[in-house]
Amino acid sequence: MCAIVGIYGNENAARLASLALFSMQHRGQEATGISSSCDGKIYTKKDSGLVSEVFTEDALTYLKGNMAIGHNRYSTAGGESIFDAQPVSAKYKLGEMSIVHNGNLINKNEVRQELIEEGAIFQTEMDTENLIHLIAKSSHERLRDRIKEGLNKTIGAYCFIIQSRSKQFVIRDRYGIRPLSLGKLKTGGYIVASETCAFDLVDAEFIRDVKPGEMLIFADGYDEPESIQLFEPEYRPCAFEYVYFARPDSVINGKNVYRTRENMGRALAKNDKKDPVKVDMVVPVPDSGVPAALGYAAESGIPFEYGIIRNHYVGRTFIEPTQEMRNMKVKMKLSPMRSLIDGKSLLVIDDSIVRGTTSKRIVKMLKEAGAKEVHFRVASPEIKFPCYYGIDTPNQEELISSRMTKDEICEYIEADTLEYLSIEDLKESIGNDANYALESFDGDYFVTK
Amino acid sequence: MCAIVGIYGNENAARLASLALFSMQHRGQEATGISSSCDGKIYTKKDSGLVSEVFTEDALTYLKGNMAIGHNRYSTAGGESIFDAQPVSAKYKLGEMSIVHNGNLINKNEVRQELIEEGAIFQTEMDTENLIHLIAKSSHERLRDRIKEGLNKTIGAYCFIIQSRSKQFVIRDRYGIRPLSLGKLKTGGYIVASETCAFDLVDAEFIRDVKPGEMLIFADGYDEPESIQLFEPEYRPCAFEYVYFARPDSVINGKNVYRTRENMGRALAKNDKKDPVKVDMVVPVPDSGVPAALGYAAESGIPFEYGIIRNHYVGRTFIEPTQEMRNMKVKMKLSPMRSLIDGKSLLVIDDSIVRGTTSKRIVKMLKEAGAKEVHFRVASPEIKFPCYYGIDTPNQEELISSRMTKDEICEYIEADTLEYLSIEDLKESIGNDANYALESFDGDYFVTK
Amino acid sequence: MCAIVGIYGNENAARLASLALFSMQHRGQEATGISSSCDGKIYTKKDSGLVSEVFTEDALTYLKGNMAIGHNRYSTAGGESIFDAQPVSAKYKLGEMSIVHNGNLINKNEVRQELIEEGAIFQTEMDTENLIHLIAKSSHERLRDRIKEGLNKTIGAYCFIIQSRSKQFVIRDRYGIRPLSLGKLKTGGYIVASETCAFDLVDAEFIRDVKPGEMLIFADGYDEPESIQLFEPEYRPCAFEYVYFARPDSVINGKNVYRTRENMGRALAKNDKKDPVKVDMVVPVPDSGVPAALGYAAESGIPFEYGIIRNHYVGRTFIEPTQEMRNMKVKMKLSPMRSLIDGKSLLVIDDSIVRGTTSKRIVKMLKEAGAKEVHFRVASPEIKFPCYYGIDTPNQEELISSRMTKDEICEYIEADTLEYLSIEDLKESIGNDANYALESFDGDYFVTK
Amino acid sequence: MCAIVGIYGNENAARLASLALFSMQHRGQEATGISSSCDGKIYTKKDSGLVSEVFTEDALTYLKGNMAIGHNRYSTAGGESIFDAQPVSAKYKLGEMSIVHNGNLINKNEVRQELIEEGAIFQTEMDTENLIHLIAKSSHERLRDRIKEGLNKTIGAYCFIIQSRSKQFVIRDRYGIRPLSLGKLKTGGYIVASETCAFDLVDAEFIRDVKPGEMLIFADGYDEPESIQLFEPEYRPCAFEYVYFARPDSVINGKNVYRTRENMGRALAKNDKKDPVKVDMVVPVPDSGVPAALGYAAESGIPFEYGIIRNHYVGRTFIEPTQEMRNMKVKMKLSPMRSLIDGKSLLVIDDSIVRGTTSKRIVKMLKEAGAKEVHFRVASPEIKFPCYYGIDTPNQEELISSRMTKDEICEYIEADTLEYLSIEDLKESIGNDANYALESFDGDYFVTK
Repeated sequence: MCAIVGIYGNENAARLASLALFSMQHRGQEATGISSSCDGKIYTKKDSGLVSEVFTEDALTYLKGNMAIGHNRYSTAGGESIFDAQPVSAKYKLGEMSIVHNGNLINKNEVRQELIEEGAIFQTEMDTENLIHLIAKSSHERLRDRIKEGLNKTIGAYCFIIQSRSKQFVIRDRYGIRPLSLGKLKTGGYIVASETCAFDLVDAEFIRDVKPGEMLIFADGYDEPESIQLFEPEYRPCAFEYVYFARPDSVINGKNVYRTRENMGRALAKNDKKDPVKVDMVVPVPDSGVPAALGYAAESGIPFEYGIIRNHYVGRTFIEPTQEMRNMKVKMKLSPMRSLIDGKSLLVIDDSIVRGTTSKRIVKMLKEAGAKEVHFRVASPEIKFPCYYGIDTPNQEELISSRMTKDEICEYIEADTLEYLSIEDLKESIGNDANYALESFDGDYFVTK
Repeated sequence: MCAIVGIYGNENAARLASLALFSMQHRGQEATGISSSCDGKIYTKKDSGLVSEVFTEDALTYLKGNMAIGHNRYSTAGGESIFDAQPVSAKYKLGEMSIVHNGNLINKNEVRQELIEEGAIFQTEMDTENLIHLIAKSSHERLRDRIKEGLNKTIGAYCFIIQSRSKQFVIRDRYGIRPLSLGKLKTGGYIVASETCAFDLVDAEFIRDVKPGEMLIFADGYDEPESIQLFEPEYRPCAFEYVYFARPDSVINGKNVYRTRENMGRALAKNDKKDPVKVDMVVPVPDSGVPAALGYAAESGIPFEYGIIRNHYVGRTFIEPTQEMRNMKVKMKLSPMRSLIDGKSLLVIDDSIVRGTTSKRIVKMLKEAGAKEVHFRVASPEIKFPCYYGIDTPNQEELISSRMTKDEICEYIEADTLEYLSIEDLKESIGNDANYALESFDGDYFVTK
Repeated sequence: MCAIVGIYGNENAARLASLALFSMQHRGQEATGISSSCDGKIYTKKDSGLVSEVFTEDALTYLKGNMAIGHNRYSTAGGESIFDAQPVSAKYKLGEMSIVHNGNLINKNEVRQELIEEGAIFQTEMDTENLIHLIAKSSHERLRDRIKEGLNKTIGAYCFIIQSRSKQFVIRDRYGIRPLSLGKLKTGGYIVASETCAFDLVDAEFIRDVKPGEMLIFADGYDEPESIQLFEPEYRPCAFEYVYFARPDSVINGKNVYRTRENMGRALAKNDKKDPVKVDMVVPVPDSGVPAALGYAAESGIPFEYGIIRNHYVGRTFIEPTQEMRNMKVKMKLSPMRSLIDGKSLLVIDDSIVRGTTSKRIVKMLKEAGAKEVHFRVASPEIKFPCYYGIDTPNQEELISSRMTKDEICEYIEADTLEYLSIEDLKESIGNDANYALESFDGDYFVTK
Repeated sequence: MCAIVGIYGNENAARLASLALFSMQHRGQEATGISSSCDGKIYTKKDSGLVSEVFTEDALTYLKGNMAIGHNRYSTAGGESIFDAQPVSAKYKLGEMSIVHNGNLINKNEVRQELIEEGAIFQTEMDTENLIHLIAKSSHERLRDRIKEGLNKTIGAYCFIIQSRSKQFVIRDRYGIRPLSLGKLKTGGYIVASETCAFDLVDAEFIRDVKPGEMLIFADGYDEPESIQLFEPEYRPCAFEYVYFARPDSVINGKNVYRTRENMGRALAKNDKKDPVKVDMVVPVPDSGVPAALGYAAESGIPFEYGIIRNHYVGRTFIEPTQEMRNMKVKMKLSPMRSLIDGKSLLVIDDSIVRGTTSKRIVKMLKEAGAKEVHFRVASPEIKFPCYYGIDTPNQEELISSRMTKDEICEYIEADTLEYLSIEDLKESIGNDANYALESFDGDYFVTK
């Protein structure tokens, strides 16, 4: 769960890249970085922190050139995070390259082991370093052929942008699991970004998605990027982007994310019609549950109400509550609208249940605030399997749905009723025009070594 | 527009005060401070920044004692803001006192001049310093009598909490313009806070509002605060708290703020029924326009849609857009949901129009994103007069409604139609049980020197 | 122990003040501040930290105007140091004033109590606030007369610089205890500073010391400052400035500080000639013991050697040594020159012994590094009495010489022999032309209430 | 010009390493880092800044284990210094290693090019990365053999400490150009450090220097390090360490640095006896010129005086003087003792002249402060050639002695006379027992590819 961006052919390349990363901050808040390229030299600035903190005016002035790539990193473990930030740059036989990556390589350990056996050294924990080695070791003359050779040994869900001193290479895996779109900047040049929500801020026009298995090459002197179909496409876009991860105003695979979430809520409502519960209002868990709740309310005719307020001032380091103040963490982020819900029966909608602890705390908080009944609805199917394709889900044993039935979960979170979206309804909500990747729900790990 | 809090009789006084201030961060983000009192000594920590930044574990450990008062300060001009942060502490004849203030004293210049003539010195720009001087100069023996005497010379909208080395004095002006509520902490002791939204986080039960003209005195050995009616009440609670300033989950004067905003939206819809506009959806300007938009949608039957997304990662210091990137500031904060609104007619609802520049940018942004028509609705009457009672409105010449008619404003912001809430509808939306302070709308400056 | 500076009549007033404070950083490292005055407005920047940290380019740009006063504060206790930093500014009847102070007022508690009885409030712990109140309460028309009246109630050792919106008033107490000198800036205007070492950096020429009991007034339209003799002078300059506090390149009361310290070393050597000790080298405790050690070596003919190296990278916050690493603090600051002193007899010279703990650690460190004998010489008399005239000495019970004889101290610090400078020799070393203040040595507290 | 340290077999390994680095801060202030090893895992903390800033209690707690290596980096160019800080860690076939390096590899470009041709990637600009690659690519089974093979391709001046998950390997090049000493910690285990001044602070006893061409291996279960003579020694210790770089209390090649500097001063004085200049005092440029000045004074009988004071509060970022304030930079660091030197003839001693600009400013400053004559003496021969063996000298064209004669330089710096130490006298001052590396003075680049 990261964001990547590439800007090619614009004199404000790094500045535009930083704005695009700013728009995609929801995909990663741990660290951020940009490499620009100018007169045969690559400039890099990366650090832990938010985009708005790292990219000061000084940093952007340092990042000269009319091409730049950037990255937002999602929270990960490790004591020295800054050294695992992207872009990763390396000098190799053809000069210098810089690379950003969104996704996860499932054969990374094997490739790394093989490279190490051959005498390679690894200075980071990032699987991205694998591809750099493969490119550097290739015997091909041209970078594009080296990249192809490297990708032939690379299995997984990935979007890469590779920047040499004069070109940019954009690659999306054959399944198109992670999103990646191409746009045209009104001030000149192109943008490639994980989500289309980045386009509006930088005044870019959406052209099309990068195709599964495609490599785009941006080079000086060409009006349009060259397109090479590297792999036979087997399109399997990630359903989780619609469920939870993407920003609602993004368009992925031609679908507006917000609308698909509304549809998920509608589907939940239709399902409930078979065996209706009597509730006074539909209440979303903000912000992610809002579109589904609107859809549910519209379909069911039950009033939509903001029964939970989200506090946006939650910082990173605030006081640890003492013993008597436990259960406070969820309350610092979410506040129940006491006078609205007191004595009322609520239908609460969240986008997903992962470990179950947050849902349990929300139900408890609502009941303490006077809710008579809390009927919990989840706008996604049960998450039974970890994702190995780039979403940062916990281990299987931590996934509550992998070890409890729906009824057990309902009892655990102390809800009055609990319903999930069916896999069929999920597919239909997004649109049945593609074979969505659903491995978290159905365990179909279709990418194999 | 500030927040104040007092905690009395709880061993975690400063910690609870910081949590209450955290809940009321929306009332002021410029600076924050807490003074605690322990064994006859007052401890103070105040600084510019957010509550979660200023109150580190070290700071809270320093703030010993079972009583504390705190303050959030709204943005103000000035180069040395930290020296104008509250609480203000001073040593005087009876020992030491510390004071926090929410409001605005309209005779501050006269009182200050008079005090200066008598030889007083002023070390800050805060009107709060006036009351400290008046208390210190009083010839009364007891602090309560000194406070009374000081308040006799104090005209304006105010809530004060004054802490001595062993007591707390809570005062609300006779009009009750600014909100102030009393709660009981489940872990022991009392809380007084500007908004009831602070009560949930600290596990406090709402008891009642502090009455207009009332002084509450918290002292050791008394189970309940002593109540003294200092002034004849002339209740005029501020309507602006409902319109814009208070958090939706707060209850002010017995009214849930969220519900009153829903009512304002319903009133706008009812009004539009007389001369309906054809629109495809109701779109709130987030976050403040949401409840009114829900009310409008419910009343009108027009679908509510999240046509504008708010970006919550906007930091304080981010890059200044270059010439080509103008108009970007509003777009960094608000993103249009392009695929939702493209080709559609929108009814957009915001809480208020002050200068008109933001509304103009929003309309422009929506039209650039494809909106066919933008009908602007404002969930408050026209703001024609500056507020002198504690809301930080600009000068009259900057208030667009003071120099343009509704039609001129509609043309200026390039909306297709524009409607405001009438003053009558505003009063009815809040509830016609009190004589609300409406000076920003009707110019009735009822507090006079 | 602080430093003050005033600049009048130079367009770079704040910048020059910051450079002067930088030169006088040795007199106070805890906090620093500058107030400038421009077009009837006073601008202030003050903060904890070093001069080079606080006065950024931004700060200096903010401090507009052609007059400025500044202050370095010595370390003091207290949790909120920044609010006790100087200059202190206040608005009062004649407008606004800003004030800096070096010294100590011995009747501060009485004056403060009296002012408080009359209804004054005190917002800081600084005795400087007293004078501001006295000035503000005066019934005189002109500031100069108000200052005079205020000073009539002010007893102690003091140098003040008071800045109004257009003038500067410089005052030195009748005893001239703390140093204060007047210089002429080559780039225009005047400088007044605690030490002449500030003059070189700002390209100023020394004119003369401010006289005991004198008030200088700098005002627009006058080529030279007006001089008023406020009090009958009883000149008693502080001997401690020569012993330890002033920078060696300063000239105080016409005496070069470095030379007086050399003389103190010579006097110690002369004294030792009566009963010589056999040593291989004279070793100073750096940096303060160096001039005396040079004098001792020159007089005695014993070689001077840098047997102890001082580490200048000691920061403020470094690791706390664990149990096994005790005694490390002095070793982080001072390193013995092992190969130089191994097997040798040393005559070690320090400027003073206050508590005795550092001297004890130095002797221990030298003996562990192989010194055969350590003969300790102190270039000042025994400090038996606390200073109440502006030097930050500890309480009497902490002064080792107030409770131990020379022989007991010698045993305590484990030196082989120990000798102090006699009071007579101290006076002669400085020059017998003034009646020096020696209260730390002889207990003659000549300033009385 | 860097510092390295290794601690083996002490539970406070990282803490002791940080103290040793603190003692060697003079060898590099740009960045610092430590890697510890514990239970098969390597922990690293590195950052730009001083040792006392980077190694907080948190950092030292993170650096678990009973072995650690550390590094101080001297100022270098480059925008992203932190990524070029040491230790460098890498995963490779045998697991993980971490490495620190002091010196300079003269065949680094050739080796790097060769490695790149073979498909290696380089992520830093540091020549240290070469050795890591050579070790990783070696086909030997054991790390010690891989290191040997790597060093066979490594030409230059170097000291390396390489840490695996359980061992430490210490290597000094066959010439022993850079210093490296072995000590025994009183609290258990061993220390290896660039300078012996580190031993005192950590309570270590000097054992011996690491021999030229020697590899020491520290491993669990062995009381003493294993010693392997990797290369035939051709001992050429760097003379510059004595002249300028080492701390005076260090012992290098059995010589106390301070004493060798004193000797250099004596030699200058002896030389002057042939054609004496009449001066009133010997004045060192502090701090580096002090021992030579003491030696000169002792030999010549001319009094030693501290005619220049060094200001130790100079921070990294302070105000840029305006036009009128030029020439201020040297004056912020060094202050002339005006009353001491006014009207006097001075013999000024500095350790070296590199570009000549600082010397010129010092002479100017002294003359402006009243010096009648300034006779400049340099306690080293003329620096005519850049050092490629690890000292950070500028390019040849910037070395004033490479393009001007002594007389021309004397005229340029506006001194009355100028004399350098002869190469012969330098050798004799250090001690004629080794064939010192003198390439900066005689251009004998004895290390060849």
